[in-house]
Amino acid sequence: MGEVLFKRCVVVGIGLIGGSFALAGKRAGVLGEVVGVARSERTRSLAVALGAADRATDDPVAACAGADLVYLATPVAAIAPIMQSICAQLPEGCAVTDAGSTKASICQAAGRLLPDRVCFIGGHPMAGSEHFGIEAARADLFTDSFYFYVPPTGHEAQLSAFIATVRAIGAIPAAVDPVQHDALVAMTSHFPHVMAAAIARSAGDLTAAQPDRSRFAGKGFADTTRIAAGPSDVWTDILLDNRINLLAALDRLGEELEAYRDALGRADAAAIRQLLEDARQSRERLLGK
Amino acid sequence: MGEVLFKRCVVVGIGLIGGSFALAGKRAGVLGEVVGVARSERTRSLAVALGAADRATDDPVAACAGADLVYLATPVAAIAPIMQSICAQLPEGCAVTDAGSTKASICQAAGRLLPDRVCFIGGHPMAGSEHFGIEAARADLFTDSFYFYVPPTGHEAQLSAFIATVRAIGAIPAAVDPVQHDALVAMTSHFPHVMAAAIARSAGDLTAAQPDRSRFAGKGFADTTRIAAGPSDVWTDILLDNRINLLAALDRLGEELEAYRDALGRADAAAIRQLLEDARQSRERLLGK
Repeated sequence: MGEVLFKRCVVVGIGLIGGSFALAGKRAGVLGEVVGVARSERTRSLAVALGAADRATDDPVAACAGADLVYLATPVAAIAPIMQSICAQLPEGCAVTDAGSTKASICQAAGRLLPDRVCFIGGHPMAGSEHFGIEAARADLFTDSFYFYVPPTGHEAQLSAFIATVRAIGAIPAAVDPVQHDALVAMTSHFPHVMAAAIARSAGDLTAAQPDRSRFAGKGFADTTRIAAGPSDVWTDILLDNRINLLAALDRLGEELEAYRDALGRADAAAIRQLLEDARQSRERLLGK
Repeated sequence: MGEVLFKRCVVVGIGLIGGSFALAGKRAGVLGEVVGVARSERTRSLAVALGAADRATDDPVAACAGADLVYLATPVAAIAPIMQSICAQLPEGCAVTDAGSTKASICQAAGRLLPDRVCFIGGHPMAGSEHFGIEAARADLFTDSFYFYVPPTGHEAQLSAFIATVRAIGAIPAAVDPVQHDALVAMTSHFPHVMAAAIARSAGDLTAAQPDRSRFAGKGFADTTRIAAGPSDVWTDILLDNRINLLAALDRLGEELEAYRDALGRADAAAIRQLLEDARQSRERLLGK
Protein backbone atom coordinates (compact mmCIF):
# COMPACT_ATOMS: atom_id res chain seq x y z
CA MET A 1 0.00 0.00 0.00
CA GLY A 2 1.28 3.46 -0.90
CA GLU A 3 0.98 6.50 1.30
CA VAL A 4 -2.36 8.36 1.23
CA LEU A 5 -1.90 11.24 -1.23
CA PHE A 6 -5.41 12.70 -1.05
CA LYS A 7 -7.28 12.41 2.24
CA ARG A 8 -10.71 13.24 0.89
CA CYS A 9 -11.49 12.70 -2.78
CA VAL A 10 -14.86 13.76 -4.16
CA VAL A 11 -15.82 11.96 -7.39
CA VAL A 12 -18.54 13.89 -9.18
CA GLY A 13 -20.24 11.55 -11.64
CA ILE A 14 -19.25 8.19 -10.19
CA GLY A 15 -19.83 5.97 -13.25
CA LEU A 16 -17.43 3.83 -15.31
CA ILE A 17 -14.48 6.25 -15.21
CA GLY A 18 -15.04 7.97 -11.85
CA GLY A 19 -15.87 4.66 -10.17
CA SER A 20 -12.83 2.91 -11.64
CA PHE A 21 -10.58 5.79 -10.50
CA ALA A 22 -11.99 5.47 -6.97
CA LEU A 23 -11.66 1.67 -6.88
CA ALA A 24 -8.10 1.80 -8.23
CA GLY A 25 -7.04 4.67 -5.94
CA LYS A 26 -8.47 2.98 -2.86
CA ARG A 27 -6.92 -0.37 -3.77
CA ALA A 28 -3.53 1.34 -4.19
CA GLY A 29 -4.01 3.16 -0.89
CA VAL A 30 -3.46 6.64 -2.35
CA LEU A 31 -7.02 7.84 -1.73
CA GLY A 32 -8.38 8.19 1.80
CA GLU A 33 -12.10 8.82 2.06
CA VAL A 34 -13.99 8.83 -1.23
CA VAL A 35 -17.26 10.72 -1.51
CA GLY A 36 -19.31 9.75 -4.57
CA VAL A 37 -21.67 12.24 -6.16
CA ALA A 38 -24.45 11.06 -8.46
CA ARG A 39 -27.95 12.21 -9.30
CA SER A 40 -29.38 8.71 -9.34
CA GLU A 41 -30.14 6.94 -6.06
CA ARG A 42 -29.33 3.62 -7.71
CA THR A 43 -25.82 4.81 -8.70
CA ARG A 44 -25.17 6.13 -5.19
CA SER A 45 -26.17 2.84 -3.54
CA LEU A 46 -24.14 0.83 -6.02
CA ALA A 47 -21.06 3.04 -5.59
CA VAL A 48 -21.09 2.39 -1.85
CA ALA A 49 -22.01 -1.28 -2.20
CA LEU A 50 -19.21 -1.90 -4.73
CA GLY A 51 -16.68 -0.19 -2.47
CA ALA A 52 -15.96 2.69 -4.85
CA ALA A 53 -17.26 5.31 -2.39
CA ASP A 54 -17.33 5.48 1.42
CA ARG A 55 -20.43 7.63 1.23
CA ALA A 56 -22.51 9.16 -1.52
CA THR A 57 -24.64 12.25 -2.06
CA ASP A 58 -26.50 14.07 -4.81
CA ASP A 59 -25.09 17.46 -3.74
CA PRO A 60 -21.68 18.29 -5.26
CA VAL A 61 -21.46 21.62 -3.39
CA ALA A 62 -21.81 20.15 0.11
CA ALA A 63 -19.60 17.19 -0.83
CA CYS A 64 -16.67 19.48 -1.69
CA ALA A 65 -16.28 20.84 1.86
CA GLY A 66 -12.95 19.58 3.16
CA ALA A 67 -11.94 17.91 -0.14
CA ASP A 68 -8.31 17.91 -1.25
CA LEU A 69 -9.09 16.27 -4.61
CA VAL A 70 -12.21 16.78 -6.74
CA TYR A 71 -12.48 14.38 -9.68
CA LEU A 72 -15.01 15.51 -12.28
CA ALA A 73 -16.13 12.50 -14.32
CA THR A 74 -19.44 13.67 -15.73
CA PRO A 75 -20.20 14.05 -19.44
CA VAL A 76 -18.12 16.87 -20.98
CA ALA A 77 -20.93 19.45 -21.17
CA ALA A 78 -21.64 19.18 -17.43
CA ILE A 79 -18.07 19.88 -16.30
CA ALA A 80 -18.06 23.70 -16.56
CA PRO A 81 -21.47 24.12 -14.86
CA ILE A 82 -20.30 21.93 -11.98
CA MET A 83 -17.08 23.94 -11.62
CA GLN A 84 -19.20 27.05 -11.38
CA SER A 85 -21.47 25.60 -8.71
CA ILE A 86 -18.66 24.24 -6.50
CA CYS A 87 -16.01 26.97 -6.89
CA ALA A 88 -16.95 28.97 -3.77
CA GLN A 89 -16.84 25.80 -1.63
CA LEU A 90 -13.38 24.57 -2.67
CA PRO A 91 -10.78 24.72 0.12
CA GLU A 92 -7.40 26.47 -0.24
CA GLY A 93 -4.94 24.22 -2.10
CA CYS A 94 -7.59 21.78 -3.31
CA ALA A 95 -6.72 19.96 -6.53
CA VAL A 96 -9.47 19.72 -9.16
CA THR A 97 -9.20 17.44 -12.18
CA ASP A 98 -11.56 16.11 -14.83
CA ALA A 99 -11.73 13.06 -17.06
CA GLY A 100 -13.25 14.68 -20.14
CA SER A 101 -12.24 13.48 -23.62
CA THR A 102 -11.59 17.06 -24.76
CA LYS A 103 -9.26 19.46 -23.02
CA ALA A 104 -9.16 22.92 -24.66
CA SER A 105 -12.62 24.19 -23.70
CA ILE A 106 -12.52 22.56 -20.26
CA CYS A 107 -9.14 24.09 -19.38
CA GLN A 108 -10.43 27.46 -20.58
CA ALA A 109 -13.52 27.15 -18.40
CA ALA A 110 -11.38 26.19 -15.40
CA GLY A 111 -9.18 29.26 -15.92
CA ARG A 112 -12.28 31.45 -16.02
CA LEU A 113 -14.26 29.84 -13.21
CA LEU A 114 -11.91 28.45 -10.57
CA PRO A 115 -10.20 30.70 -8.00
CA ASP A 116 -6.39 30.90 -7.82
CA ARG A 117 -6.30 29.06 -4.49
CA VAL A 118 -7.38 25.94 -6.38
CA CYS A 119 -5.07 23.82 -8.57
CA PHE A 120 -6.75 22.69 -11.80
CA ILE A 121 -5.17 19.78 -13.68
CA GLY A 122 -7.02 18.85 -16.89
CA GLY A 123 -7.08 15.07 -17.36
CA HIS A 124 -7.98 12.48 -19.98
CA PRO A 125 -7.48 8.80 -19.20
CA MET A 126 -7.16 6.83 -22.46
CA ALA A 127 -9.21 4.00 -21.08
CA GLY A 128 -12.80 3.08 -21.44
CA SER A 129 -15.15 0.43 -22.57
CA GLU A 130 -18.37 0.17 -24.51
CA HIS A 131 -19.96 -0.67 -21.16
CA PHE A 132 -20.86 2.18 -18.88
CA GLY A 133 -22.17 3.07 -15.45
CA ILE A 134 -20.80 2.30 -12.00
CA GLU A 135 -21.57 -1.42 -12.46
CA ALA A 136 -18.92 -1.54 -15.21
CA ALA A 137 -16.23 0.13 -13.01
CA ARG A 138 -13.06 -1.93 -12.49
CA ALA A 139 -9.96 -1.26 -10.39
CA ASP A 140 -7.77 -2.30 -13.35
CA LEU A 141 -9.46 -0.14 -16.00
CA PHE A 142 -6.43 2.16 -16.33
CA THR A 143 -3.71 -0.47 -16.23
CA ASP A 144 -0.99 0.32 -18.79
CA SER A 145 -3.07 3.04 -20.47
CA PHE A 146 -1.85 6.56 -21.10
CA TYR A 147 -3.31 9.19 -18.82
CA PHE A 148 -3.02 12.64 -20.41
CA TYR A 149 -2.89 15.67 -18.17
CA VAL A 150 -2.50 19.41 -18.66
CA PRO A 151 0.01 20.71 -16.09
CA PRO A 152 -1.12 23.74 -14.05
CA THR A 153 0.95 26.89 -13.54
CA GLY A 154 2.51 26.58 -10.09
CA HIS A 155 0.92 24.18 -7.55
CA GLU A 156 3.92 21.80 -7.73
CA ALA A 157 2.92 19.78 -4.67
CA GLN A 158 -0.58 19.05 -5.97
CA LEU A 159 0.73 18.17 -9.43
CA SER A 160 3.26 15.71 -8.08
CA ALA A 161 0.62 14.07 -5.85
CA PHE A 162 -1.66 13.81 -8.89
CA ILE A 163 1.06 12.25 -11.06
CA ALA A 164 1.88 9.79 -8.28
CA THR A 165 -1.82 8.90 -8.08
CA VAL A 166 -1.99 8.28 -11.83
CA ARG A 167 1.01 5.94 -11.52
CA ALA A 168 -0.53 4.24 -8.48
CA ILE A 169 -3.67 3.31 -10.44
CA GLY A 170 -1.46 1.64 -13.05
CA ALA A 171 -1.62 4.29 -15.78
CA ILE A 172 1.18 6.12 -17.59
CA PRO A 173 1.04 9.90 -17.04
CA ALA A 174 1.76 12.03 -20.14
CA ALA A 175 1.72 15.85 -20.17
CA VAL A 176 -0.09 17.42 -23.14
CA ASP A 177 -0.96 20.80 -24.58
CA PRO A 178 -4.79 21.04 -24.57
CA VAL A 179 -5.18 22.36 -28.14
CA GLN A 180 -2.80 19.82 -29.63
CA HIS A 181 -4.46 17.09 -27.58
CA ASP A 182 -7.89 17.85 -29.04
CA ALA A 183 -6.65 17.86 -32.65
CA LEU A 184 -4.97 14.47 -32.18
CA VAL A 185 -7.82 12.70 -30.38
CA ALA A 186 -10.21 14.05 -33.04
CA MET A 187 -8.39 11.78 -35.52
CA THR A 188 -7.53 8.81 -33.35
CA SER A 189 -10.65 8.59 -31.18
CA HIS A 190 -13.56 10.91 -32.00
CA PHE A 191 -13.43 10.46 -35.74
CA PRO A 192 -13.26 6.63 -35.45
CA HIS A 193 -16.33 6.91 -33.24
CA VAL A 194 -18.28 8.80 -35.91
CA MET A 195 -17.19 6.28 -38.53
CA ALA A 196 -18.19 3.31 -36.39
CA ALA A 197 -21.61 4.87 -35.87
CA ALA A 198 -21.97 5.75 -39.56
CA ILE A 199 -21.13 2.17 -40.53
CA ALA A 200 -23.52 0.67 -37.99
CA ARG A 201 -26.41 2.85 -39.18
CA SER A 202 -25.71 2.39 -42.90
CA ALA A 203 -25.34 -1.35 -42.53
CA GLY A 204 -28.57 -1.48 -40.58
CA ASP A 205 -30.47 0.51 -43.21
CA LEU A 206 -29.14 -1.38 -46.19
CA THR A 207 -29.87 -4.77 -44.69
CA ALA A 208 -33.22 -3.84 -43.12
CA ALA A 209 -35.18 -5.87 -45.69
CA GLN A 210 -33.33 -9.09 -44.76
CA PRO A 211 -35.15 -11.02 -42.06
CA ASP A 212 -32.03 -12.99 -41.10
CA ARG A 213 -29.46 -10.27 -41.63
CA SER A 214 -27.76 -10.78 -38.28
CA ARG A 215 -26.18 -13.88 -39.82
CA PHE A 216 -24.24 -11.60 -42.14
CA ALA A 217 -22.57 -9.48 -39.49
CA GLY A 218 -19.20 -11.08 -38.84
CA LYS A 219 -16.45 -10.48 -36.32
CA GLY A 220 -15.06 -7.68 -38.52
CA PHE A 221 -18.34 -5.79 -38.26
CA ALA A 222 -18.53 -6.29 -34.50
CA ASP A 223 -14.97 -5.00 -34.01
CA THR A 224 -15.28 -2.08 -36.39
CA THR A 225 -18.44 -0.79 -34.76
CA ARG A 226 -17.78 -1.74 -31.11
CA ILE A 227 -17.21 1.84 -29.93
CA ALA A 228 -20.57 2.84 -31.42
CA ALA A 229 -22.14 0.82 -28.59
CA GLY A 230 -21.14 3.58 -26.14
CA PRO A 231 -23.63 5.97 -24.50
CA SER A 232 -25.06 8.47 -27.00
CA ASP A 233 -25.30 11.36 -24.54
CA VAL A 234 -21.68 11.21 -23.46
CA TRP A 235 -20.50 11.04 -27.05
CA THR A 236 -22.78 13.83 -28.25
CA ASP A 237 -21.05 16.15 -25.78
CA ILE A 238 -17.59 15.07 -26.86
CA LEU A 239 -18.25 15.36 -30.60
CA LEU A 240 -19.85 18.78 -30.20
CA ASP A 241 -17.07 20.08 -28.01
CA ASN A 242 -14.44 18.99 -30.53
CA ARG A 243 -16.45 19.74 -33.65
CA ILE A 244 -13.93 22.05 -35.38
CA ASN A 245 -11.25 19.38 -35.33
CA LEU A 246 -13.80 16.74 -36.27
CA LEU A 247 -15.04 18.66 -39.30
CA ALA A 248 -11.43 18.82 -40.53
CA ALA A 249 -11.10 15.07 -40.02
CA LEU A 250 -14.33 14.44 -41.95
CA ASP A 251 -12.95 16.47 -44.86
CA ARG A 252 -9.82 14.35 -44.86
CA LEU A 253 -11.87 11.16 -44.86
CA GLY A 254 -13.99 12.40 -47.75
CA GLU A 255 -10.80 12.57 -49.85
CA GLU A 256 -9.81 9.11 -48.71
CA LEU A 257 -13.15 7.59 -49.74
CA GLU A 258 -12.88 9.37 -53.09
CA ALA A 259 -9.56 7.56 -53.66
CA TYR A 260 -11.27 4.19 -53.05
CA ARG A 261 -14.20 5.17 -55.26
CA ASP A 262 -11.81 6.07 -58.12
CA ALA A 263 -9.74 2.92 -57.77
CA LEU A 264 -12.82 0.67 -57.56
CA GLY A 265 -14.50 2.50 -60.45
CA ARG A 266 -11.42 1.85 -62.63
CA ALA A 267 -10.99 -1.69 -61.21
CA ASP A 268 -7.40 -0.63 -60.51
CA ALA A 269 -5.94 -3.48 -58.43
CA ALA A 270 -2.54 -1.83 -57.96
CA ALA A 271 -4.11 1.37 -56.57
CA ILE A 272 -6.37 -0.55 -54.16
CA ARG A 273 -3.47 -2.70 -52.97
CA GLN A 274 -1.39 0.43 -52.35
CA LEU A 275 -4.18 2.10 -50.34
CA LEU A 276 -4.63 -1.00 -48.18
CA GLU A 277 -0.92 -1.51 -47.70
CA ASP A 278 -0.43 2.15 -46.69
CA ALA A 279 -3.29 1.75 -44.21
CA ARG A 280 -1.80 -1.39 -42.67
CA GLN A 281 1.57 0.27 -42.18
CA SER A 282 0.03 3.49 -40.91
CA ARG A 283 -1.94 1.53 -38.30
CA GLU A 284 1.17 -0.30 -37.12
CA ARG A 285 3.09 2.94 -36.73
CA LEU A 286 0.23 4.58 -34.83
CA LEU A 287 -0.07 1.64 -32.47
CA GLY A 288 3.68 1.78 -31.94
CA LYS A 289 4.34 -1.66 -33.43
CA MET B 1 -14.89 -39.08 -33.44
CA GLY B 2 -17.40 -38.88 -36.28
CA GLU B 3 -17.42 -41.11 -39.32
CA VAL B 4 -15.04 -40.15 -42.15
CA LEU B 5 -17.13 -38.14 -44.65
CA PHE B 6 -14.39 -37.37 -47.16
CA LYS B 7 -11.60 -39.93 -47.61
CA ARG B 8 -9.20 -37.65 -49.43
CA CYS B 9 -9.47 -33.88 -49.07
CA VAL B 10 -7.20 -31.62 -51.12
CA VAL B 11 -6.79 -28.14 -49.63
CA VAL B 12 -5.50 -25.73 -52.28
CA GLY B 13 -4.00 -22.70 -50.52
CA ILE B 14 -3.40 -24.15 -47.07
CA GLY B 15 -3.14 -20.90 -45.05
CA LEU B 16 -5.27 -19.52 -42.21
CA ILE B 17 -8.64 -20.70 -43.55
CA GLY B 18 -7.60 -23.83 -45.46
CA GLY B 19 -5.31 -24.92 -42.64
CA SER B 20 -7.95 -24.34 -39.98
CA PHE B 21 -10.51 -26.31 -42.01
CA ALA B 22 -8.06 -29.20 -42.28
CA LEU B 23 -7.12 -29.12 -38.58
CA ALA B 24 -10.78 -28.94 -37.52
CA GLY B 25 -11.91 -31.62 -39.96
CA LYS B 26 -9.14 -34.01 -38.92
CA ARG B 27 -9.78 -33.38 -35.23
CA ALA B 28 -13.48 -34.13 -35.73
CA GLY B 29 -12.59 -37.26 -37.70
CA VAL B 30 -14.63 -36.27 -40.77
CA LEU B 31 -11.62 -35.88 -43.07
CA GLY B 32 -9.43 -38.85 -43.93
CA GLU B 33 -6.19 -38.03 -45.74
CA VAL B 34 -5.53 -34.30 -46.26
CA VAL B 35 -3.27 -33.18 -49.09
CA GLY B 36 -2.08 -29.58 -48.73
CA VAL B 37 -1.26 -27.53 -51.82
CA ALA B 38 0.90 -24.42 -51.51
CA ARG B 39 3.42 -22.66 -53.70
CA SER B 40 5.81 -21.93 -50.85
CA GLU B 41 8.06 -24.68 -49.52
CA ARG B 42 7.86 -23.13 -46.05
CA THR B 43 4.04 -23.33 -46.02
CA ARG B 44 4.13 -26.96 -47.17
CA SER B 45 6.57 -27.98 -44.43
CA LEU B 46 4.60 -26.10 -41.80
CA ALA B 47 1.27 -27.59 -42.91
CA VAL B 48 2.65 -31.09 -42.43
CA ALA B 49 4.54 -30.23 -39.22
CA LEU B 50 1.43 -28.63 -37.67
CA GLY B 51 -0.68 -31.68 -38.56
CA ALA B 52 -2.96 -29.83 -40.98
CA ALA B 53 -1.85 -31.96 -43.93
CA ASP B 54 -0.67 -35.57 -44.23
CA ARG B 55 1.38 -34.59 -47.25
CA ALA B 56 1.91 -31.46 -49.29
CA THR B 57 2.68 -30.54 -52.88
CA ASP B 58 2.92 -27.49 -55.12
CA ASP B 59 0.95 -29.17 -57.92
CA PRO B 60 -2.84 -28.84 -57.55
CA VAL B 61 -3.51 -30.91 -60.69
CA ALA B 62 -1.66 -34.02 -59.52
CA ALA B 63 -3.00 -33.59 -55.97
CA CYS B 64 -6.62 -33.84 -57.16
CA ALA B 65 -6.29 -37.41 -58.43
CA GLY B 66 -8.47 -39.57 -56.22
CA ALA B 67 -9.90 -36.63 -54.23
CA ASP B 68 -13.49 -36.69 -53.02
CA LEU B 69 -13.31 -33.12 -51.62
CA VAL B 70 -11.33 -30.19 -53.05
CA TYR B 71 -11.25 -27.14 -50.77
CA LEU B 72 -10.14 -23.96 -52.58
CA ALA B 73 -8.83 -21.48 -50.03
CA THR B 74 -6.68 -19.21 -52.15
CA PRO B 75 -7.27 -15.47 -52.63
CA VAL B 76 -10.50 -14.85 -54.58
CA ALA B 77 -8.84 -13.99 -57.92
CA ALA B 78 -6.94 -17.32 -58.00
CA ILE B 79 -10.03 -19.53 -57.56
CA ALA B 80 -11.32 -19.56 -61.18
CA PRO B 81 -7.86 -20.18 -62.72
CA ILE B 82 -7.33 -23.12 -60.36
CA MET B 83 -10.74 -24.58 -61.24
CA GLN B 84 -9.73 -24.41 -64.88
CA SER B 85 -6.41 -26.14 -64.30
CA ILE B 86 -7.81 -28.99 -62.17
CA CYS B 87 -11.16 -29.62 -63.89
CA ALA B 88 -9.96 -32.44 -66.19
CA GLN B 89 -8.43 -34.26 -63.23
CA LEU B 90 -11.46 -34.25 -60.90
CA PRO B 91 -12.97 -37.71 -60.29
CA GLU B 92 -16.65 -38.51 -60.85
CA GLY B 93 -18.74 -37.34 -57.88
CA CYS B 94 -15.97 -35.21 -56.40
CA ALA B 95 -17.19 -32.26 -54.28
CA VAL B 96 -15.46 -28.92 -54.86
CA THR B 97 -15.93 -25.99 -52.53
CA ASP B 98 -14.22 -22.64 -51.96
CA ALA B 99 -13.81 -20.25 -49.05
CA GLY B 100 -13.91 -16.97 -50.97
CA SER B 101 -15.54 -13.89 -49.42
CA THR B 102 -17.59 -13.27 -52.56
CA LYS B 103 -19.89 -15.80 -54.15
CA ALA B 104 -21.56 -14.51 -57.34
CA SER B 105 -18.56 -14.47 -59.66
CA ILE B 106 -17.07 -17.65 -58.20
CA CYS B 107 -20.31 -19.63 -58.58
CA GLN B 108 -20.59 -18.35 -62.17
CA ALA B 109 -17.04 -19.45 -62.91
CA ALA B 110 -17.73 -22.89 -61.41
CA GLY B 111 -20.84 -23.28 -63.60
CA ARG B 112 -18.78 -22.42 -66.66
CA LEU B 113 -15.60 -24.36 -65.87
CA LEU B 114 -16.44 -27.47 -63.87
CA PRO B 115 -17.88 -30.62 -65.54
CA ASP B 116 -21.31 -31.96 -64.51
CA ARG B 117 -19.78 -35.03 -62.85
CA VAL B 118 -18.43 -32.66 -60.16
CA CYS B 119 -20.51 -31.12 -57.35
CA PHE B 120 -19.65 -27.46 -56.73
CA ILE B 121 -20.75 -25.94 -53.41
CA GLY B 122 -19.79 -22.26 -53.02
CA GLY B 123 -18.69 -21.53 -49.46
CA HIS B 124 -17.90 -18.58 -47.22
CA PRO B 125 -16.94 -19.21 -43.60
CA MET B 126 -17.65 -16.07 -41.52
CA ALA B 127 -14.47 -16.55 -39.54
CA GLY B 128 -11.07 -15.05 -39.82
CA SER B 129 -8.48 -13.07 -38.04
CA GLU B 130 -6.12 -10.22 -38.76
CA HIS B 131 -3.38 -12.86 -38.58
CA PHE B 132 -2.75 -14.96 -41.64
CA GLY B 133 -0.81 -17.89 -43.00
CA ILE B 134 -0.71 -21.53 -41.93
CA GLU B 135 1.00 -20.57 -38.65
CA ALA B 136 -2.20 -18.78 -37.61
CA ALA B 137 -4.44 -21.79 -38.38
CA ARG B 138 -6.49 -23.13 -35.46
CA ALA B 139 -8.82 -26.11 -35.15
CA ASP B 140 -11.37 -23.88 -33.38
CA LEU B 141 -11.38 -20.99 -35.88
CA PHE B 142 -14.91 -21.78 -37.09
CA THR B 143 -16.49 -22.50 -33.72
CA ASP B 144 -19.98 -20.96 -33.51
CA SER B 145 -19.48 -18.92 -36.70
CA PHE B 146 -21.89 -18.96 -39.61
CA TYR B 147 -20.70 -20.88 -42.65
CA PHE B 148 -22.53 -19.70 -45.77
CA TYR B 149 -22.90 -22.09 -48.66
CA VAL B 150 -24.57 -21.99 -52.05
CA PRO B 151 -26.41 -25.30 -52.57
CA PRO B 152 -25.74 -27.09 -55.86
CA THR B 153 -28.40 -28.46 -58.19
CA GLY B 154 -28.63 -32.18 -57.48
CA HIS B 155 -25.66 -33.94 -55.83
CA GLU B 156 -27.66 -34.49 -52.62
CA ALA B 157 -25.19 -36.99 -51.11
CA GLN B 158 -22.22 -34.61 -51.48
CA LEU B 159 -24.20 -31.68 -50.15
CA SER B 160 -25.28 -33.52 -47.04
CA ALA B 161 -21.71 -34.73 -46.40
CA PHE B 162 -20.52 -31.13 -46.79
CA ILE B 163 -23.15 -29.78 -44.37
CA ALA B 164 -22.26 -32.49 -41.86
CA THR B 165 -18.59 -31.49 -42.21
CA VAL B 166 -19.41 -27.83 -41.56
CA ARG B 167 -21.27 -28.87 -38.41
CA ALA B 168 -18.42 -31.16 -37.37
CA ILE B 169 -15.91 -28.27 -37.46
CA GLY B 170 -18.18 -26.34 -35.08
CA ALA B 171 -19.72 -23.91 -37.57
CA ILE B 172 -23.37 -23.17 -38.34
CA PRO B 173 -24.26 -23.93 -41.97
CA ALA B 174 -26.54 -21.37 -43.68
CA ALA B 175 -27.71 -21.60 -47.29
CA VAL B 176 -27.52 -18.33 -49.27
CA ASP B 177 -28.23 -16.96 -52.71
CA PRO B 178 -24.87 -15.81 -54.16
CA VAL B 179 -26.06 -12.41 -55.44
CA GLN B 180 -27.86 -11.55 -52.22
CA HIS B 181 -24.86 -12.77 -50.22
CA ASP B 182 -22.48 -10.41 -52.01
CA ALA B 183 -24.72 -7.36 -51.49
CA LEU B 184 -25.01 -8.06 -47.77
CA VAL B 185 -21.35 -8.78 -47.06
CA ALA B 186 -20.45 -5.62 -48.99
CA MET B 187 -22.15 -3.68 -46.20
CA THR B 188 -21.31 -5.78 -43.17
CA SER B 189 -17.77 -6.87 -44.02
CA HIS B 190 -16.14 -5.36 -47.14
CA PHE B 191 -17.31 -1.81 -46.53
CA PRO B 192 -16.17 -1.86 -42.85
CA HIS B 193 -12.82 -3.05 -44.16
CA VAL B 194 -12.50 -0.05 -46.48
CA MET B 195 -13.51 2.27 -43.66
CA ALA B 196 -11.02 0.77 -41.24
CA ALA B 197 -8.28 1.22 -43.83
CA ALA B 198 -9.38 4.78 -44.64
CA ILE B 199 -9.32 5.69 -40.94
CA ALA B 200 -5.92 4.12 -40.37
CA ARG B 201 -4.38 5.99 -43.31
CA SER B 202 -6.04 9.33 -42.52
CA ALA B 203 -5.08 9.13 -38.87
CA GLY B 204 -1.54 8.29 -39.83
CA ASP B 205 -1.29 11.23 -42.23
CA LEU B 206 -2.84 13.77 -39.90
CA THR B 207 -0.66 12.80 -36.97
CA ALA B 208 2.56 12.29 -38.96
CA ALA B 209 4.13 15.48 -37.56
CA GLN B 210 3.74 14.27 -33.95
CA PRO B 211 6.82 12.39 -32.79
CA ASP B 212 4.94 10.68 -29.95
CA ARG B 213 1.63 10.21 -31.71
CA SER B 214 1.34 6.53 -30.80
CA ARG B 215 0.38 7.72 -27.32
CA PHE B 216 -2.80 9.15 -28.78
CA ALA B 217 -4.10 5.99 -30.38
CA GLY B 218 -6.40 4.41 -27.81
CA LYS B 219 -8.27 1.13 -27.61
CA GLY B 220 -11.08 2.59 -29.75
CA PHE B 221 -8.64 3.24 -32.58
CA ALA B 222 -7.11 -0.23 -32.30
CA ASP B 223 -10.56 -1.88 -32.41
CA THR B 224 -11.94 0.26 -35.20
CA THR B 225 -9.01 -0.40 -37.48
CA ARG B 226 -8.17 -4.01 -36.52
CA ILE B 227 -9.41 -5.55 -39.75
CA ALA B 228 -7.16 -3.17 -41.72
CA ALA B 229 -4.24 -5.22 -40.40
CA GLY B 230 -5.22 -8.05 -42.76
CA PRO B 231 -3.23 -9.02 -45.88
CA SER B 232 -3.52 -6.38 -48.63
CA ASP B 233 -3.42 -8.86 -51.53
CA VAL B 234 -6.27 -10.97 -50.27
CA TRP B 235 -8.43 -7.91 -49.62
CA THR B 236 -7.62 -6.27 -52.95
CA ASP B 237 -9.12 -9.32 -54.69
CA ILE B 238 -12.22 -9.27 -52.51
CA LEU B 239 -12.90 -5.55 -52.88
CA LEU B 240 -12.41 -5.67 -56.65
CA ASP B 241 -14.62 -8.71 -57.07
CA ASN B 242 -17.44 -7.05 -55.12
CA ARG B 243 -16.85 -3.52 -56.35
CA ILE B 244 -20.35 -2.82 -57.70
CA ASN B 245 -21.92 -3.51 -54.29
CA LEU B 246 -19.11 -1.63 -52.57
CA LEU B 247 -19.55 1.48 -54.68
CA ALA B 248 -23.23 1.53 -53.65
CA ALA B 249 -22.18 1.20 -50.01
CA LEU B 250 -19.70 4.08 -50.38
CA ASP B 251 -22.49 6.27 -51.76
CA ARG B 252 -24.64 5.44 -48.75
CA LEU B 253 -21.81 6.29 -46.37
CA GLY B 254 -21.20 9.59 -48.13
CA GLU B 255 -24.78 10.57 -47.22
CA GLU B 256 -24.24 9.44 -43.64
CA LEU B 257 -21.11 11.57 -43.24
CA GLU B 258 -22.98 14.51 -44.73
CA ALA B 259 -25.55 14.15 -41.94
CA TYR B 260 -22.79 14.35 -39.30
CA ARG B 261 -21.16 17.27 -41.08
CA ASP B 262 -24.48 19.16 -41.10
CA ALA B 263 -25.25 18.43 -37.47
CA LEU B 264 -21.73 19.34 -36.31
CA GLY B 265 -21.72 22.49 -38.45
CA ARG B 266 -24.96 23.62 -36.82
CA ALA B 267 -23.81 22.39 -33.36
CA ASP B 268 -27.13 20.53 -33.27
CA ALA B 269 -26.91 18.30 -30.18
CA ALA B 270 -30.31 16.68 -30.69
CA ALA B 271 -29.46 15.66 -34.26
CA ILE B 272 -26.08 14.20 -33.24
CA ARG B 273 -27.63 12.30 -30.33
CA GLN B 274 -30.25 10.84 -32.68
CA LEU B 275 -27.63 9.71 -35.20
CA LEU B 276 -25.57 8.02 -32.47
CA GLU B 277 -28.59 6.43 -30.85
CA ASP B 278 -29.84 5.07 -34.19
CA ALA B 279 -26.36 3.65 -34.78
CA ARG B 280 -26.26 1.95 -31.39
CA GLN B 281 -29.62 0.32 -31.91
CA SER B 282 -28.82 -0.62 -35.50
CA ARG B 283 -25.64 -2.35 -34.33
CA GLU B 284 -27.47 -4.30 -31.67
CA ARG B 285 -30.08 -5.49 -34.15
CA LEU B 286 -27.42 -6.52 -36.66
CA LEU B 287 -25.50 -8.47 -34.05
CA GLY B 288 -28.75 -10.13 -32.99
CA LYS B 289 -28.69 -8.70 -29.47
